[in-house]
Parts: sequence; C-alpha cells; structure tokens
Amino acid sequence: MFKAIVSAETLKTTLDSVSVLVDECKIHLNDDGLEIRAVDPANVGMVDLRLSASAFESYEADGGIIGVNLSRLEDIAGMADSGQLVELELDEETRKLHIQIDGLEYTLALIDPDSIRKEPDIPDLDLPAEVKIEGKDINRAVKAADMVSDHIALGVDSDAGQFYVDAEGDTDDVHLELDKSDLIDLQTGEAHSLFSLDYLKDMNKAIPKDAEVTLELGEEFPVKLSFDIAEGQGTVLFVLAPRIQSD
Amino acid sequence: MFKAIVSAETLKTTLDSVSVLVDECKIHLNDDGLEIRAVDPANVGMVDLRLSASAFESYEADGGIIGVNLSRLEDIAGMADSGQLVELELDEETRKLHIQIDGLEYTLALIDPDSIRKEPDIPDLDLPAEVKIEGKDINRAVKAADMVSDHIALGVDSDAGQFYVDAEGDTDDVHLELDKSDLIDLQTGEAHSLFSLDYLKDMNKAIPKDAEVTLELGEEFPVKLSFDIAEGQGTVLFVLAPRIQSD
Amino acid sequence: MFKAIVSAETLKTTLDSVSVLVDECKIHLNDDGLEIRAVDPANVGMVDLRLSASAFESYEADGGIIGVNLSRLEDIAGMADSGQLVELELDEETRKLHIQIDGLEYTLALIDPDSIRKEPDIPDLDLPAEVKIEGKDINRAVKAADMVSDHIALGVDSDAGQFYVDAEGDTDDVHLELDKSDLIDLQTGEAHSLFSLDYLKDMNKAIPKDAEVTLELGEEFPVKLSFDIAEGQGTVLFVLAPRIQSD
Repeated sequence: MFKAIVSAETLKTTLDSVSVLVDECKIHLNDDGLEIRAVDPANVGMVDLRLSASAFESYEADGGIIGVNLSRLEDIAGMADSGQLVELELDEETRKLHIQIDGLEYTLALIDPDSIRKEPDIPDLDLPAEVKIEGKDINRAVKAADMVSDHIALGVDSDAGQFYVDAEGDTDDVHLELDKSDLIDLQTGEAHSLFSLDYLKDMNKAIPKDAEVTLELGEEFPVKLSFDIAEGQGTVLFVLAPRIQSD
Repeated sequence: MFKAIVSAETLKTTLDSVSVLVDECKIHLNDDGLEIRAVDPANVGMVDLRLSASAFESYEADGGIIGVNLSRLEDIAGMADSGQLVELELDEETRKLHIQIDGLEYTLALIDPDSIRKEPDIPDLDLPAEVKIEGKDINRAVKAADMVSDHIALGVDSDAGQFYVDAEGDTDDVHLELDKSDLIDLQTGEAHSLFSLDYLKDMNKAIPKDAEVTLELGEEFPVKLSFDIAEGQGTVLFVLAPRIQSD
Repeated sequence: MFKAIVSAETLKTTLDSVSVLVDECKIHLNDDGLEIRAVDPANVGMVDLRLSASAFESYEADGGIIGVNLSRLEDIAGMADSGQLVELELDEETRKLHIQIDGLEYTLALIDPDSIRKEPDIPDLDLPAEVKIEGKDINRAVKAADMVSDHIALGVDSDAGQFYVDAEGDTDDVHLELDKSDLIDLQTGEAHSLFSLDYLKDMNKAIPKDAEVTLELGEEFPVKLSFDIAEGQGTVLFVLAPRIQSD
C-alpha cells in the first residue's frame, strides 16, 4: 500500500538527485518515508537518498518496493507548476502508479524491481577530512576543471588550513584554494584523491547552488558528498570512487 | 488595391494561426477585412481566419487575392518590436508587397494564387456538444497526451457532466476530466472522437494560453476549435478530422 | 613583465571584438595599454583594438607581446560573474598567463607569437562620407539584409541627405534609408560600396546595441566602423574590404 501527496518541487528534486546516476531505480516505500539507493553501471558513483514522511503533505506506506523509470517520472512531475501538488497512489493489483496533478491522471506502468540493477551497500567510511562548502563553490570548481581536464583532484592541506581543487590539462591548469573563511567549515586531515570529472559533473547537477554540502575526504579514498533536500526533510548522499593516480 | 497599417503583434498572431497548417496561403483582401482559408496537404486540418478592418490602424482594400509564403512574412514581421506598426502596400503592377517597419522597407515577391492549393469548403457541422475552455487547459491536455501516445480522444460524458481527454499508450495512460466548474461553459451531448495528436499539437501552438476556446464535438465527427484574436477583432476556426477508432 | 587587474566585463568585450574575426591573436602589452591588430585568413576584415591602461583597475607592462587562443581566454573570462575582477599575470619564464578570479587560478599556456598570422597594416584611408549611427540600427539593417541576400550595399545619397542600406535577393529586396534626424550625425559625400554580409554580421556581433558607431564610407572603398568600449577607455576599429559590384 502506498498513497502520498507531495509538492511537485520536492518530487522533482528527489528524482533529479538519482537520475544523474541511473535511468531506473527501486524505491523503498517505508512507513517513515522513501529510500532510494543506486549505483551507476560502472560501480563508480552511488547515491543514497532518504525522504522523510514529513516532507509530504500526506504519506501512507507499508514497506513495499516499486521499480520506476526515472526520466518518465520526471517528465510527469514536469507537467506540474511549481507549487502544485502531486498525488501518488499505487494500484497493487495492476502494479501501476496513479499520479494525479490538478485533475490530470497519469497511469504509469512500473518496472519489476527484480529486473533493476542490485542496490549497492553504501560503504561505511571514516574519512579524516571534512569540508562544509556552498553548492555554488562546487559548481565553480567543477566548471573550471572541466575547461582543462577530464579528472579533478580534491584535497586538504592541513598545514595551510585549506581545501583545494586541482585539474591538470595538457597545457593549462586550474587550481582553487579555499581556506576556513571561504568555507562554512573545515576539519583538516590528510586528504588527496583524484576523481573522474564526468561523475562529479553529474552529481553537481543535482546539488542546489545554495545547498550546504558536506564533503568527506581521505588519501586515495572515495569522497562522500551529502546535503539536505526538501527543507531538511530529506538527505542525499553521493559516494564517488577515486581514480588511480597516474603520476 | 491594398494598403494597411497593423500592429506587429496582430500581424504575427494572424500569420502564426495559419502557418501551423500550411506553408503558403491565399489572403482575401475584402473591403471589410482579411480572410484566409487553408487545409493541410493531407486534408486533415483546416483553418478559417477572419481579421476585421477594425483590427488595423488603417485599412483599404477592394477584394483582391494575394498568395504569400507564410514563413517569409513571419520573418519580416519578426523584425518589428512588439508595439511597432507594420505598413503593407500592394504594388499591383509588379505583384510585390511593400512592407515598411520604421524606415525599413522590405519588398516581398508574392506567389501566384493559382499555384497555391485550393481553399477548402469549411464543413457546416451541427455538433451536439460544446465546451468552452481556457487555452492553457488545452495545452496541458495536449502535452500530457503527447507523453504516452500519438493520438488523443476528446469526449463528453453527459451523465457525469464532464468533458474528458484520453490518451492510451503501450504501457501508460493519461486521463483528464473537467466538469462545469473547471470549464468556462459546457453543453453536454453525445461526443467521443479520436484525433491525431500531431495536428492538435500544431493547432495548440497557435492558441493563446489565455484564450477562451470553444470546442464543438460529436460522435466520431470532426472537432471545431474557435477563438478570438486581435482583441476580438478577429476569429480563428480550426476544424480537425477524426481518426478511425482502432478498437 | 605584465600584471593587470580588469573587470570581467571589460575583458569579455575586448576579447569578443577580436574573436569575431580570428581564433588566435597577438596582444601588445604596451606601457600605456593593450593593442591588438588582426586580419581574417581571407584578408577581408581587419580589427585594430586599443585598450588604455586607465580601463584597468591596475596595469603594469613593459612592451612585450603575447599570443593567445581567444576562445580559451573567453571561456575563462566567462567563469567570472559580471562585476568580478580578473587578475592577469605573465610568467616570463614558463610563458604562461596566470589568471585569478576570486580564488580560482587558471594557468593558460600562451602561443608563440611567431606562429600567429602576421598583423595587418591598417590602411590610412581618407573617406568622403561619415555616418554616426546607433549600434541597434546597424543590427536592424544587417538582420533585415540577411533575410534576402548574402551581400549588402552601404551608401550615402548626398542630394537626399541620407545614409542608405540596400540588399537585393533573387525575389525580395530590403532597403533602409536614414536621414540626419534618424542618425547621430551625417557628413555627406559620394559613397556606395558592396560588402559581404557574413563579415558584417560577425562585426555586428561585437558592436554593443547602445554604442555610437562611426562609419566612414567611399565609392567602392572599404568601410571603417569604429566605436568605443570600456566606457571610452578603449576603441575598436573594424575595416571591411568591399566586394566587386556584380552589376
């Protein structure tokens, strides 16, 4: 059983956070809210999204799992104006999701959850450095790095008390240093890892420019990026595996 | 003889209403205003547009007919800022249309009207159901239907007192019901017909979102869509033939 | 030695004025400001741009020459918000340009100036007619001419006291006449020349719509287009060679 009403904006934000990595996903309809975990086909980027029942206008569920085509569901949510409410109701018999937006009813065929790629175990990493940074600064770093390279190094210089971003191209380089006064917060620790820029660009698309993003970093370790959605009633955690350093 | 001054906005609206169906058309330059009738090459969609002399700043004509390339004329009208006036004057000898916009003179070669597809006889249909609906609701229905199918059913449920839209895709369906309170007006009658969505999408492009549109519908009959343009000084009538029901 | 701070907007305007003609250019880093001269590969369009040291927040240079890839430098300047400052510093040893925008450092590899197309001698022409015109009127003329032809005639009718633009297509024509009251200023003289519209379209892209542009014209002679940038602290001169009249 699943029946919920949610603002179009919250629904879109939720879907966008997952669709940057995968086309289809399983949604766990727990009694206290939704959970979505997914990993991209190359096993490089993961997402763990939780949206509390309190993020909804109304919410009833009893622990089922549905499989959805994300772009299809995003298109439907896109039919709603911002501020409009979206009603979702699962028809257990037909395995279809009924979606209502101001009189318009869309019947969405669901995907057999067993046919969807297995959900990842989110690694429980204790990383030495933690950076709290505005979404717009991640955006700047990613866009600048993209001008010169297809990979990006993120690191912390404990001595200088700085978080830094490095991208080295064939002829040109990009370097960004942010110290504690440029950041929301910084806990230094040994950290330097290289990442695929393609993945970070995709994750960046899902990060609101005004979000407070927590980056957890280590020495040649995955980076964890987490931020709130739905006015704090939901959280998104991205985990991105490092690339092997070429030098 | 034809000489007229018209606002760029009125000229653009007029041309856009016809260009969604055909590339070239004949314009009747009657003494009380313009009339354009056209049918698409497949004989599925027709338009009958009338623009009264009162829609113009000044208007003089004596019943001639000119043939025009619509996209060319739309491009010229697009050179004007909204609020600017467009002066049109026919040179009978050269069969060219002189178009002036704030000092800029464009000389447009006309098309021989005899080389343009014959104008349709607009069928005089007495259809049982009539729906008055806002342009934005037609837009919503057409966009939603387009997500699942390439045809769309329009109908009236007399018992429920509702106008409805149905689109059935291979896996997903869209359904919209609007009762009298959602509509500007509704006169019920037996009505259900299936239409090609491509044509309705084209007509929808020409319908202002804030227009009051009258739909006349029957049982496997064409639909008539009519609305005012130029602040009530002009009218557009679209007629769209039904598709044969496949079920 | 070169070290300067400039607003992102001034930097972008400067680069855009040159990049409409060439992909790479030499920049003369004179002690009183920058100078860039370039000619397109077909030797049809030239630009001579000067940006005074006073257009910069701070400026130090001693007469060197650097070679730059313009689109690369435009992309970097595009990283800055309008109002942000861009710091430029030449590393003489590595022949790289260090560019800083609010903590972001971009290291740009320069191009060997000797590998860049030779700079043109800007012809010292004394042309009989001079037209001062708003950038938006050039834009209008170019856009209208582009609808019918790939070349454009610019001329002055001394008797009528008018500057005119003519474009003749296979079937349609465009004509624009502006007299002294439509222009900022007009000094009549015998002038009529035909130009490639492609070049004038490119130059038009670099002309601000609100700029006061001086056109100098003659009888089958090049046209000179000049306008100020950077609030009068810089000037751009375009010279466009005429096409041979075909009639």
